[in-house]
Amino acid sequence: MTILLSITGFEPTRWLKALTDHAPQRSILLHPENAHDPSIEYAVVWHQPTGLLAGLPNLKAIFSIGAGVDHVLKDKRLPDVPIVRIVADDLTTRMSEYVVWRVLDHMRRGLAYHAQQDAVHWRPRRRQPKASEVTVGIMGFGELGRDAAGKLAGLGFSIAGWSRSEKHIEGVQHFSGEAGLDAFLSVSDIVVCLLPLTAETRGILNYGLFTRMKKQTPMGGPVLINAGRGRLHVEADIVRALDEKVLFEVSLDVFEHEPLPPASPLWKNTRAFLTPHIAAVSEPEALAPLIIQQINAFERGEPLKHIVNRTTGY
Amino acid sequence: MTILLSITGFEPTRWLKALTDHAPQRSILLHPENAHDPSIEYAVVWHQPTGLLAGLPNLKAIFSIGAGVDHVLKDKRLPDVPIVRIVADDLTTRMSEYVVWRVLDHMRRGLAYHAQQDAVHWRPRRRQPKASEVTVGIMGFGELGRDAAGKLAGLGFSIAGWSRSEKHIEGVQHFSGEAGLDAFLSVSDIVVCLLPLTAETRGILNYGLFTRMKKQTPMGGPVLINAGRGRLHVEADIVRALDEKVLFEVSLDVFEHEPLPPASPLWKNTRAFLTPHIAAVSEPEALAPLIIQQINAFERGEPLKHIVNRTTGY
Repeated sequence: MTILLSITGFEPTRWLKALTDHAPQRSILLHPENAHDPSIEYAVVWHQPTGLLAGLPNLKAIFSIGAGVDHVLKDKRLPDVPIVRIVADDLTTRMSEYVVWRVLDHMRRGLAYHAQQDAVHWRPRRRQPKASEVTVGIMGFGELGRDAAGKLAGLGFSIAGWSRSEKHIEGVQHFSGEAGLDAFLSVSDIVVCLLPLTAETRGILNYGLFTRMKKQTPMGGPVLINAGRGRLHVEADIVRALDEKVLFEVSLDVFEHEPLPPASPLWKNTRAFLTPHIAAVSEPEALAPLIIQQINAFERGEPLKHIVNRTTGY
Repeated sequence: MTILLSITGFEPTRWLKALTDHAPQRSILLHPENAHDPSIEYAVVWHQPTGLLAGLPNLKAIFSIGAGVDHVLKDKRLPDVPIVRIVADDLTTRMSEYVVWRVLDHMRRGLAYHAQQDAVHWRPRRRQPKASEVTVGIMGFGELGRDAAGKLAGLGFSIAGWSRSEKHIEGVQHFSGEAGLDAFLSVSDIVVCLLPLTAETRGILNYGLFTRMKKQTPMGGPVLINAGRGRLHVEADIVRALDEKVLFEVSLDVFEHEPLPPASPLWKNTRAFLTPHIAAVSEPEALAPLIIQQINAFERGEPLKHIVNRTTGY
């Protein structure tokens, strides 16, 4: 019984070592040329080549090494086996800490103070709201959104949430669907996007949405933080909205094309803070054991957890 | 019965209005030339002129508008009346939020990512520890230190504390005095200084102390955050320690001379993040009512709270 590891875009060495360390009795194959091997029963993937998994006669399950599975589902020839996404305290914590960091940095006007320092300019007076004066609106209220909300609420922020479907969460003003979007935006000083990338959410963060955001906020204007996927947003619209002060400031961890091309005007925008897709890095040492545990449990006859719904795309 | 308001260094307008709003029945005098007025019973001060208060025959108490009182005590001709420092949720919360912001920014390598953005450089791999892997050491464990510790612990950080005298605080590794300083520094990845400025603490953050800090930390080296007073640190030593990588990164909100002179090499150091003394701004609208409440209670015969010990200086 064999596990196929198929990773595109970065070196798979650490993943190979971590999986081997936690399943020394199993064969782990790394290269797609082995992909017709009938002994392969499980695939652990990041952006697998299209059609690769369809060639495996005995595949039982596909494991994504990230929380999002858009990179798996873009393969239109996927075999009909369960797709399992990763849900791990390690990833969730990293994402929540990124969100709290970025929210506090915008609230305390980190970008403006950074620009002042670059300009050797001492200017104390800026609006410095407290957490209790700021509402953070979280788009996408799954595992990640709920955890970030808890940490933000613990610091005194008010929390709003927006999802596809209705939810009731203690202490959170929750809104759902297109019908609830305006009400959600009207209470949110800082909008944090943690949505999955699906046919419905692609490009949802566009100029039209930015114009519907709250205009007056304790910082001076509406702030957007996107830590979901780059294709949730339209970069040209973000650039335009920043130029027109429709958006006050943004933090972006993800981009339509990664690495972000050097020609993007976002690099030099002092009201944009960019990170190179590091909000919640999948650390193989923390995540490989969870995948191996799932495989072992499945082979004992237990059901797989965190199976993706192919219709909703998450 | 009159209140004297003596503020040096910024416009007293908002303080005058806030005090008047909360004590419409009292006279509030603004200018030092009125300082011999025998009707003055209370003084509300920020860097009052030396000797000013000694000229008031009927002064009953002095109120500092900031948490620190070094600006009051530097007047060597102070009359022998109680000096009251401000302890206010508003100030405490602002300081704690500053501390959490700066700790997260260093943990998540905000300065390095900012420099990468300036250089149009995409580089994902940097050490990105989680809060649970980082110990924050807080020097000065009074109201401010305890509140910051609680918020940091809520996010999963481990907390160490250091004070002049011994303390026992649940969940905190506490150290005291010169005898406890090395042990404190050896467990602290990030040192946050919230000490009061006294004869004992002046210049405590110097090159010698920096060389005693923990060398290996999850970020790569030891981080210093000073949000207390500028004269707690020696700026030339910080510059040297950054150059020699004895200090990895710093956040400074306070400086030996404010505004920080344009010639300071700190302005252009990409491993230093500077803010213009805004960590916890005394907002008169939030603080004036607390001073008026203390005066009213005192006149009803109740004791003053938060009286400064002139021997320890806080």
